[in-house]
Amino acid sequence: MTATDDLLASNQRYAASYDKGALTAAPAKGVVVLTCMDARLDPARFLGLEEGDAHVIRNAGGVATDDAIRSVVISQRLVGTESIVIVHHTGCGMESFTDAAMKDELVAETGIRPSFSFEAFPDAAADVRQTAARLAASPFVRHEHVRGFVYDVESGRLHEVALDGG
Amino acid sequence: MTATDDLLASNQRYAASYDKGALTAAPAKGVVVLTCMDARLDPARFLGLEEGDAHVIRNAGGVATDDAIRSVVISQRLVGTESIVIVHHTGCGMESFTDAAMKDELVAETGIRPSFSFEAFPDAAADVRQTAARLAASPFVRHEHVRGFVYDVESGRLHEVALDGG
Repeated sequence: MTATDDLLASNQRYAASYDKGALTAAPAKGVVVLTCMDARLDPARFLGLEEGDAHVIRNAGGVATDDAIRSVVISQRLVGTESIVIVHHTGCGMESFTDAAMKDELVAETGIRPSFSFEAFPDAAADVRQTAARLAASPFVRHEHVRGFVYDVESGRLHEVALDGG
Repeated sequence: MTATDDLLASNQRYAASYDKGALTAAPAKGVVVLTCMDARLDPARFLGLEEGDAHVIRNAGGVATDDAIRSVVISQRLVGTESIVIVHHTGCGMESFTDAAMKDELVAETGIRPSFSFEAFPDAAADVRQTAARLAASPFVRHEHVRGFVYDVESGRLHEVALDGG
C-alpha cells in the first residue's frame, strides 16, 4: 500500500462520520490564515479551527508571494474575510538554504536556471514583518486587520510579532 | 474579543497539551498535498494526517501556480517528499467568477489592473488534470508519484481523477 492509499483509507473513515455537508463557502470566523507548508504545523489544530471556520493559505515559508496575494484577494472579494493572520515558525526550512544555492543545484541538474525566487529567508520574525509589508503594499488587498506570529514547533505556542504600523 | 484573539485562546489550550516538540521537518509519510484554501476543507482531518506527516500547500483553487511549484521543489529538495497529492473540490469559489470580471472589479475600484492571473476555472476535475499537467511540465519537479482527486464538500469523500499519462 502506497502512502497515498493510506491517506485514502483515512478518508473513507472520515467520510463515514462526516456531518458538515451543509456548510457554505464563507468562513464562519471571517479569517484568512497565511502560513508555511511545514508538516509539523497543523493550523486547524493549533488555532482551534473547525471545518468552515477560516481560509488557510500555505506555501513554503508562509510568504506573501503574488500567489498568496491572489488568494487573499479572492478570499476578501468572494466571501468577505476581514482578518489576516500570518504565521511563520521556528526551525523553518527556509532558513536552511539560499536562493543562489538552490538555483545552482537546479541548473547543475537540469541545465535550466529558475526565473523565480525561492523566497529563502534568514529570520522568521523579520520575514513575518516582510510578509505583512508586502500585503500592505498591494493595491488589491484590503487592510482591515492583520496580525503576525511565529509558531514555536517545540512548544506548539504562537508568539506575536509587532508589525510596522500595526 | 476579535476573531484572532479567539484563535489565540485556542492556541493556549493546544500548547498546554502539546507533545510533538521532538518532530523533525521531514514529513513522515513522504507526501506533499496541494489543495484549496476553502474553509470547508481540513486536509489533515480528511486525509488522516497527524502533525509531522505531510507538507500541505494551499492556495485559491489548489492550482499549480509558480508559487506552488516553488513550494513543491523545496519540499522535494529539502526533505525528499516522494508523492504529490492534488485535491480540488466541489462547489469551489474558483468556478463562480472569471479572471476578466475580477480584474474589471479591481481596476474600477483601485485604478490598477492586476498583471497576474486569478486562475479561475470552470470545472474542478479538468483543473486537477491541468494542475498535474503543469507539474509534469516543470523541469524542476520530480515525478515519482502524482495522483489527483476532487473532494466532495457534501460527503467528505475523495473521488480520484484519472491523470493523463498517470
